[in-house]
Amino acid sequence: MKEKIVIYDGYKIFTPGPVKMSDEVLSLGAKQTPYFRNEKFSHVLLSCEKMLLKMLNAPKGSRVIFLTASGTAGLEAVVMNLLSKEDEAIVVNGGGFGQRFVDICKSYEVNHLDFKVENTNLADINEREFEDGFNTFIVNAHETSLGHLYDLEAIGSFCKKHKLLNIVDAISMFVTDELDMQKQNIDAVILSSQKGLALPPGLSMIVLNERAINRIGDVKSHYFNFKDYLKDGKRGQTPYTPCVSIILQLEERLKQIQKDGGVKSTIKKAKELAEYFRENIKDLPFEFFTPFMPNAMTTLSPTNGKIALQIVKELEVNEKIIVCPNGGEVGEKIFRVSHMGDMSLEYVDSLIEALRRYK
Amino acid sequence: MKEKIVIYDGYKIFTPGPVKMSDEVLSLGAKQTPYFRNEKFSHVLLSCEKMLLKMLNAPKGSRVIFLTASGTAGLEAVVMNLLSKEDEAIVVNGGGFGQRFVDICKSYEVNHLDFKVENTNLADINEREFEDGFNTFIVNAHETSLGHLYDLEAIGSFCKKHKLLNIVDAISMFVTDELDMQKQNIDAVILSSQKGLALPPGLSMIVLNERAINRIGDVKSHYFNFKDYLKDGKRGQTPYTPCVSIILQLEERLKQIQKDGGVKSTIKKAKELAEYFRENIKDLPFEFFTPFMPNAMTTLSPTNGKIALQIVKELEVNEKIIVCPNGGEVGEKIFRVSHMGDMSLEYVDSLIEALRRYK
Repeated sequence: MKEKIVIYDGYKIFTPGPVKMSDEVLSLGAKQTPYFRNEKFSHVLLSCEKMLLKMLNAPKGSRVIFLTASGTAGLEAVVMNLLSKEDEAIVVNGGGFGQRFVDICKSYEVNHLDFKVENTNLADINEREFEDGFNTFIVNAHETSLGHLYDLEAIGSFCKKHKLLNIVDAISMFVTDELDMQKQNIDAVILSSQKGLALPPGLSMIVLNERAINRIGDVKSHYFNFKDYLKDGKRGQTPYTPCVSIILQLEERLKQIQKDGGVKSTIKKAKELAEYFRENIKDLPFEFFTPFMPNAMTTLSPTNGKIALQIVKELEVNEKIIVCPNGGEVGEKIFRVSHMGDMSLEYVDSLIEALRRYK
Repeated sequence: MKEKIVIYDGYKIFTPGPVKMSDEVLSLGAKQTPYFRNEKFSHVLLSCEKMLLKMLNAPKGSRVIFLTASGTAGLEAVVMNLLSKEDEAIVVNGGGFGQRFVDICKSYEVNHLDFKVENTNLADINEREFEDGFNTFIVNAHETSLGHLYDLEAIGSFCKKHKLLNIVDAISMFVTDELDMQKQNIDAVILSSQKGLALPPGLSMIVLNERAINRIGDVKSHYFNFKDYLKDGKRGQTPYTPCVSIILQLEERLKQIQKDGGVKSTIKKAKELAEYFRENIKDLPFEFFTPFMPNAMTTLSPTNGKIALQIVKELEVNEKIIVCPNGGEVGEKIFRVSHMGDMSLEYVDSLIEALRRYK
């Protein structure tokens, strides 16, 4: 096979999507895409659904919708299908992705409280006062724009108490931080391929329990019509051509996770990597942006007056290391380091070494 | 790299998507997905846009929208963004994909004529009578469900005469049959990755000339908001995470097409393959389903009483060859053979040989 060079070939990547993929997953990327309107592919899709439901500890009757689209489509499709003008949602807004959920609710005229939060993981949500009338709670479990993880157990118990439908965007914390639909009382979960699952971008998955399935209404959209996906999904198919290659890679990845001891092991590994990184940069002029850090990511703020964007640039040019800058004003103050994907301690060492030069 | 086996590994594929990909494109599928919110990726996207516009002979001021989604999302997004309740569209309905356009227009309450056609390529459209009031024409240039190609020149001159916005789904004829926005007077084109472009499924492209851009209205949808895509696209970016890997493969594929003599050469090659196939099965018990065949595909109907679905199955099981079955009643009568993708005459020979057994 003729070898081709892509942009950033050989660079080390610490961005929260895309993330470093395993050799096995990459090897599947070099395979011809098979025809998919048949039993063999149905078997693949059904097997992915089964493994995902198990990893999420989803209750009986739960289903997975496979959308060929990126994460925002997942957020939008969930709002579109599960909520209407009759619903009232509390939307946690602690950053760019919380704001996106608020904007989507606005567009679809879903009544909502723009619940602005800062410096809290909502562990105290049960002590907070809200007006009556809400029937839905929406949260980005890991607010990836800032690297901030909310307390899903507290939120789950709050939702249970107030009978709220609990919608969780788990896009950048699945398989690196704990996610358990039963234990955390979650009704709808949104996942995406290019984060902890360490696959190419282009696939989003919506996991719904029976309660969430019963909330599905009629929508104008064809491409995002959950009823059609659930119907065709029963036989392992999708209404429209799916991203077949990524789904084959998903199956491989999920099997690998199972083989390696399940989601508990991948979470443990991410936790080790994150702690190793955090421990080893303690003496460097950076501080953690938030105390509520997920295993998936560390957000750093330079303490020596250095501009964060400048560090991001220097790491790329001088060290061939890609970390993730922030947009807007905050881009001067923070940058993000992901611990998702197929990383080893040695891989992390390369970044630690590079950051040591800022001491 | 550890080698993985996928379903249908080593099978020959003659389906109209996915199609056989080149070694160069496959080799890129095995690369780590690079971070994309930077100039290097912007350069890739802008370069893809430029090459696509040239290949389509798009007029000055035309733009490309890159949607991470499959073809139906492209159809739906175009209706959603370019048409409203004030518009009146003639929708050519000669098969499953024409019906899909009709259904989408219905959902979005776009006034439309469900223009049912059969056994015609609409070369005579200028002699047909329509009521007044239409401002839009919608057609699937290649009705892929049946392998039927419409006459884009006749349609273009009809649209010019009646001042209709001409929307063409060119998903399964681009780079295998002639498509020229200026010569054929086309305003909006919908393309998809897994057909003639011979890439993995998951990317759709919408090409708009200035007239079509001026028709873009406000939409509820975030994920399909063309205004946002056009704005971010100016600097080579997309509003939401794109399918980075497929876009890198697209760049490679477009460069290869340019290097090999441009779209004219790929069309010539597809025509040769199609004619070679058709010539060499002349004496076999199959007839062509339609006289209006694209270079992209041949639809065959067994004449010896054999069930089409049975042939599809036998080719798969006995010959490791995948051709495309049809759904519904017509599935007993026809099957489809694609000539899209990275095929040689020898590759086509394998299918001809296999079909010879039905003599």
